[in-house]
Amino acid sequence: MTFKFNNVYLNEVATIAGPYEKKGPLGKMFDKTYKDLYCTETSWERAEVRLLNDSMKMVLKKSDLKKEDINLVISGDLLNQISSSSYAVYDLKRPFLGIYSACATNVEALILGSSLISSKYINRCMCSVSSHNMSSEKQFRNPTEYGAPKPKTATFTSTGGASSIISNVKSDIKIESGTIGKVIDMSQNDPLDMGAVMAPAAADTIYQHLMDTKRDASYYDLILTGDLGLYGKEILKDYMLSEYKIDLTKNYNDCGVMLYDLLEQKEILAGGSGPVCSPLVLYTTVLEQMKQKKIKRVLMVATGALFNPNFVFQKENILSIAHAVSLEVI
Amino acid sequence: MTFKFNNVYLNEVATIAGPYEKKGPLGKMFDKTYKDLYCTETSWERAEVRLLNDSMKMVLKKSDLKKEDINLVISGDLLNQISSSSYAVYDLKRPFLGIYSACATNVEALILGSSLISSKYINRCMCSVSSHNMSSEKQFRNPTEYGAPKPKTATFTSTGGASSIISNVKSDIKIESGTIGKVIDMSQNDPLDMGAVMAPAAADTIYQHLMDTKRDASYYDLILTGDLGLYGKEILKDYMLSEYKIDLTKNYNDCGVMLYDLLEQKEILAGGSGPVCSPLVLYTTVLEQMKQKKIKRVLMVATGALFNPNFVFQKENILSIAHAVSLEVI
Repeated sequence: MTFKFNNVYLNEVATIAGPYEKKGPLGKMFDKTYKDLYCTETSWERAEVRLLNDSMKMVLKKSDLKKEDINLVISGDLLNQISSSSYAVYDLKRPFLGIYSACATNVEALILGSSLISSKYINRCMCSVSSHNMSSEKQFRNPTEYGAPKPKTATFTSTGGASSIISNVKSDIKIESGTIGKVIDMSQNDPLDMGAVMAPAAADTIYQHLMDTKRDASYYDLILTGDLGLYGKEILKDYMLSEYKIDLTKNYNDCGVMLYDLLEQKEILAGGSGPVCSPLVLYTTVLEQMKQKKIKRVLMVATGALFNPNFVFQKENILSIAHAVSLEVI
Repeated sequence: MTFKFNNVYLNEVATIAGPYEKKGPLGKMFDKTYKDLYCTETSWERAEVRLLNDSMKMVLKKSDLKKEDINLVISGDLLNQISSSSYAVYDLKRPFLGIYSACATNVEALILGSSLISSKYINRCMCSVSSHNMSSEKQFRNPTEYGAPKPKTATFTSTGGASSIISNVKSDIKIESGTIGKVIDMSQNDPLDMGAVMAPAAADTIYQHLMDTKRDASYYDLILTGDLGLYGKEILKDYMLSEYKIDLTKNYNDCGVMLYDLLEQKEILAGGSGPVCSPLVLYTTVLEQMKQKKIKRVLMVATGALFNPNFVFQKENILSIAHAVSLEVI
């Protein structure tokens, strides 16, 4: 299911990041960083709310807009009942739609916001997501104090908040189309190998997008997955070639790999993950290259593992989904 | 923020309910009921997935549609990471958007689906929600085996799954408009008094809807809140009168109160709650009265408490939101 958008533009972005992201290769490109994971707060949950709320205020400031100028806020995150979003959005006092697609949430927000702008229901929308390494570890895995070792396929939940303003006001970057993915089950059930869980969802959505738009993969200067990590990235390339005869060796990368220096930052293991991982890359280095017209067409394919610890304990498979959005320099 | 919809109709609904709902006054109106809370499954989580998946299959069957006829599924629920929705939607193999507005989720789904149909992005959408008394109690409160007593203001999470098919194909019931609410904080922090938490959100959204549409409350034959319960209902009436000079004494009711026989079913306390509570009432007795043209205009105002146990333990206020959708007999 691919939606084509008319007159929808990415106007401004804001990225707030934590200490691990600051140490990575994009560290200097974020609008604001925190030097520790508490981000001046007293709990991991409050730290995540701050990161998200910071990004909302920052994107308004960078846009020289007041909160009243925003017609709608669409936001989601990994915390149970997307609480970071509810608490962060409160002081904007704007109409709010909560969404959830795990780490694919930012693209779900962009697709929904773009649909509503393109159809003239709204003029301007804020799309926001967050994640926090420790609030996620606390919720999804063992207490980190146990120091349980992890396999090399494990990913590291990125810490940060990211917001964008999209509208019908022309800018350099057009949001051209979006593809909504389907839930995929490939009988994977290892929560420490999300790349393998999510790669088939990315493949399904990329293929669907290319079919719907009658495009070849080479149409895009860059096809970017959200957080497959080092191993998931290889699985996707293999799978695309064997299943769909599509070659991703030339114009494909993964945000989870790009956000960190994986040779230096050993604790990151296979790469970053979490809803904020992909916008921290898309809204910094990728957007910069687009503005400089080094690359003109980008397909952002965010992947999400639909994963709740109870279901994993009960031996259910981990499901996945991917949504894609096409951005073009005009 | 109120959206007006063109050519969007409620075509078919399906309601699946648990044993407590079966014993209530609407018990004979549901498409299917289960006599115990396990619903033939071995866990509360799997039981909830079954209820939701049953409603999806039932609404397709009642509509004489195949899953391929559905362009998009929008679904949400109370389980962490809306897992009931992800698992229930899997075998439909259709594009899926996950959403979350707590017990206001069904109206968020109807608004998003209607916007996408009205703007011709899609022709037909399935909107689904579920909740399950025990999967919710397990997740949000004390283990029920503790037998902790509850105050009379507490509500009882309803058990069931509900799905609707909305499309551009004409039916008796038009989805006329929808209002997206704002996050409200009235400094409430008692998770056993959700009516008080959510009543101000309902008030804010009803007022916004009436302002946006330039209507008087008497325009509607019925204004229906989702799950304020016995006490929340009185708070809303008082608050609407004192804050906005709007009289709700003549045409207002609450689904949480209507779903059960509160005099007989003492365990329900102040009334039903959960995302499925409002559609179990809207899609049965209310829709029946609309089809018989006893009532012609209904404003469904679903309310949600934006509530995560961690935030409550950390002494945060419980936030709330309400979304409204206007249904009209044509």
